[in-house]
Amino acid sequence: MQTKTVTVKLDKHCYDIIIGPNLIAQAASQIKHALNKKDPHPTRLALVTDTNVASLHLEILQAELIKNKIHTVPIIVEAGEQSKSFSTLQVVIDQILAARLERGDCVIAFGGGVIGDLAGFAASIIRRGMNFIQMPTTLLAQIDSSVGGKTGINSQYGKNLIGTFYQPQCVIADTCLLDTLPPREFRAGYAEMVKYGLINQPDFFEWLEKNGQEVFSNGPMRTEAIVRSCQFKAAIVARDEQETGERALLNLGHTFGHMLETATAYDSKRLIHGEAVAIGMILAHQFSAQLNLISPTLTQRIGAHFKSIGLPTQLKDIPGNLPDTETLMTLIAQDKKVSKNNLTFILTRGLGQSFIAKNVSPEAVLTFLEQKLAEIR
Amino acid sequence: MQTKTVTVKLDKHCYDIIIGPNLIAQAASQIKHALNKKDPHPTRLALVTDTNVASLHLEILQAELIKNKIHTVPIIVEAGEQSKSFSTLQVVIDQILAARLERGDCVIAFGGGVIGDLAGFAASIIRRGMNFIQMPTTLLAQIDSSVGGKTGINSQYGKNLIGTFYQPQCVIADTCLLDTLPPREFRAGYAEMVKYGLINQPDFFEWLEKNGQEVFSNGPMRTEAIVRSCQFKAAIVARDEQETGERALLNLGHTFGHMLETATAYDSKRLIHGEAVAIGMILAHQFSAQLNLISPTLTQRIGAHFKSIGLPTQLKDIPGNLPDTETLMTLIAQDKKVSKNNLTFILTRGLGQSFIAKNVSPEAVLTFLEQKLAEIR
Repeated sequence: MQTKTVTVKLDKHCYDIIIGPNLIAQAASQIKHALNKKDPHPTRLALVTDTNVASLHLEILQAELIKNKIHTVPIIVEAGEQSKSFSTLQVVIDQILAARLERGDCVIAFGGGVIGDLAGFAASIIRRGMNFIQMPTTLLAQIDSSVGGKTGINSQYGKNLIGTFYQPQCVIADTCLLDTLPPREFRAGYAEMVKYGLINQPDFFEWLEKNGQEVFSNGPMRTEAIVRSCQFKAAIVARDEQETGERALLNLGHTFGHMLETATAYDSKRLIHGEAVAIGMILAHQFSAQLNLISPTLTQRIGAHFKSIGLPTQLKDIPGNLPDTETLMTLIAQDKKVSKNNLTFILTRGLGQSFIAKNVSPEAVLTFLEQKLAEIR
Repeated sequence: MQTKTVTVKLDKHCYDIIIGPNLIAQAASQIKHALNKKDPHPTRLALVTDTNVASLHLEILQAELIKNKIHTVPIIVEAGEQSKSFSTLQVVIDQILAARLERGDCVIAFGGGVIGDLAGFAASIIRRGMNFIQMPTTLLAQIDSSVGGKTGINSQYGKNLIGTFYQPQCVIADTCLLDTLPPREFRAGYAEMVKYGLINQPDFFEWLEKNGQEVFSNGPMRTEAIVRSCQFKAAIVARDEQETGERALLNLGHTFGHMLETATAYDSKRLIHGEAVAIGMILAHQFSAQLNLISPTLTQRIGAHFKSIGLPTQLKDIPGNLPDTETLMTLIAQDKKVSKNNLTFILTRGLGQSFIAKNVSPEAVLTFLEQKLAEIR
């Protein structure tokens, strides 16, 4: 009843994101439908998931697939970011090849962003590209990482440095799966939803201010918020598939956010990605205010909404000590989105009026960071 | 003077293959020209090559690049097929990332097919795709593997099972480099050139019958033959970039050829790829004759040309013993180009009239192989 579809229209490929409650119960028919567009042969899948998702949801999904005579090879990796590694990638690829899956067979990513990135990367390079379907199980994956075709693993030199652009045949986002998500993970995903409002959809931000609490319970507001988020992300990806321009707006809050994640050594006890982005967005707005682009009251309004949801908004919300200003600046300069002496930031001229600022002076950033660190010392 | 250009026109990308003698001496300007289309910044390269090519040609190429202020990071891997591995891929990627090369910087593959496949794959997955230029140093690489955008490494489950389709910014084929190629390697590359004639260019086959010996010495006939080969391959790739149809014609001689390579355990003392393809093409023509598609005299004509060049043409030209018919059939069935019970072969209806035959009966192949093995027992 409540199932909605968002279509991602790319130059050479078009696919559906199906969003709604209890979609696992119809996964077999959705998968067959998405694949039969290309291939009428018997459906054979590699189902890549992690230990957490497997213990909660694998049995019910496998039962549904078996009932519908879909040959399934489950591949379970350790939950957590450390699985985005060369060694885990090789294990996944070996299992898929050992099962003799072919190009027309399909890899399913059943999990959060780590599983989507890892399984999507494997699918993109096995036999130069197998079919691929995303079944995201976290809010962040449903609204962000499963849409847009970025895949990848981490390197000792940085996150997501090895990967491909690879689009799925479809995305199946079962909103009921989010009921088993730890509340902190849900809030972190919610921060990225707010980001979409702050980029260029003030209406959506206002809608979230009004209905945000409802998104946390499983109902039509949750589906509505995910649909609106996917529509936004799909539109931006359609206009700039390989991030040569506008797609960079999605990095709002991410330059400061990555700086904080690295400064806290990606210690999830201190900070998780969506929390870093929430604080990063506040910092990006405060920095915009310092450059006289917006009034400080806008930052206060956004911070108030984050607080009402239970998200962190400032450096002092991060447990433990942070490094000094010079170290933070080095982290920013190392970030892959920054090139040489022109620092690129996503700044804003008002609510939902973000823009790509390519010539931000390192001195201005340094002064801003000194001031922020002084506030917590 | 003798430099020729073949343009590869793909849907979303267009690039030049530059062919001629002494191109290393102008490599810097060619590279800058190809990259400046996209990027006006200082040129930074990772130069991936193997121990053989490095000892022969690296010094002169590096001197040319340094002279032209191109920052170059040389990466030298062991010569040989064993470098198309996950572990060597990881070493290459780590060195490129350690040197802090970015998306707009470039990976150069300076070597034969192994280096092109390995370096191209690395370029395609680092930062989701760096610039890439091929500088092929073998005849096979200049006419075949450097054109078309296939990259990849081998798996324990088969060759080239992990890789991408990834097109270079340009290909620079210096015909003088072929003077240091071992004659057996040159002949093996020549076999693939003949293949292009046999697929659908009877004129080119006749040209090779007349001028083939000239191709072995460095002069305008060599350049001409490489240009005609690249034109052919570029045209077929332009019509079918991802091998969903016509591109399969390029597998003429390859189903039998792969069977023989696997049967001889890829032992280069017994058989190298081009030799296997030469024998495979003769077998494909003999099989076509057995199916009454062509007259046996055509096979004799092709065999005579191969012999005049010094290429093997029959099973008894392979040193050592071959497995029995059943084992050979299993190898054919395992080949990735074969799906289930319908064996796909490239057969022919005459000189340069090859076609994709999708429903070849396994029994007919079995009978044919029994007969061929009986001839050498």
